[in-house]
Amino acid sequence: MKRTSFEDADCPVARSLDSIGDWWSLLIVRDVLAGKRRFGELQKGLGMAKNILAARLRKLVERGILEHQPAADGSAFSEYVPTERGHKLFPVLVALRQWGLDNYFQCGEPYRELVDRKKGKPLAKMEVRAADGRVLAPEDTRFLALAAKAA
Amino acid sequence: MKRTSFEDADCPVARSLDSIGDWWSLLIVRDVLAGKRRFGELQKGLGMAKNILAARLRKLVERGILEHQPAADGSAFSEYVPTERGHKLFPVLVALRQWGLDNYFQCGEPYRELVDRKKGKPLAKMEVRAADGRVLAPEDTRFLALAAKAA
Repeated sequence: MKRTSFEDADCPVARSLDSIGDWWSLLIVRDVLAGKRRFGELQKGLGMAKNILAARLRKLVERGILEHQPAADGSAFSEYVPTERGHKLFPVLVALRQWGLDNYFQCGEPYRELVDRKKGKPLAKMEVRAADGRVLAPEDTRFLALAAKAA
Repeated sequence: MKRTSFEDADCPVARSLDSIGDWWSLLIVRDVLAGKRRFGELQKGLGMAKNILAARLRKLVERGILEHQPAADGSAFSEYVPTERGHKLFPVLVALRQWGLDNYFQCGEPYRELVDRKKGKPLAKMEVRAADGRVLAPEDTRFLALAAKAA
């Protein structure tokens, strides 16, 4: 199905989804942020067809989320590395991860815990907070009228 | 394109994406969390075809993210309301929102600010943190070996 583009939507959520492009692409970003850099590694991990993965990677590069560059070790391989923009998707991935773990894993079901490298402890829960630190539910927030983004 | 199901993936991010189902669905959840409850309201806001919206809503209900119930005001309309599980998608939406605003809006471009209802101030930045509060980048985290989810 051809979908509407949200590239010019006035909602940042819609523009984010438009840029990420689809579903698979977020899993590609997940793997690159976790240190997978080579096409073959990504393809093996995701189990996707090569042409599909190539197209998704191209889009992620176009959107400035990944960069495609020669391998750091000087070998003939090339690597995909996250840009600053790609790096900043980490909170989105961790929020999705925590939600998925809470809702779609049974007790006792195996999964890989993501921990703080320094202490080896699970991460803090991602929560929406006010500037003063109060945890906010959707009903504790509201939208202002349309305004211009500040510099 | 038919996609692989990640319903049984051992990665919570993959299961989350599988459950949300697609792209549009997250925008539906965004609108329901913002208080849009009726089919017509959602359809008008999203500008999607009725049959597509109906299919997406059905899937969100099946997945336990929304509930479909008679209108609270006793009218003939029915409403879609978020379940606890749907409610908990709020951090995912806010993280996507902040990322989109930082990356895909020019200065001066109009958007709707989401603020703390009580103080009228912008929300705190969503950040990944360690249990002790340190802000973590992807490289400050690592995966443990596959382990069973605790009760």
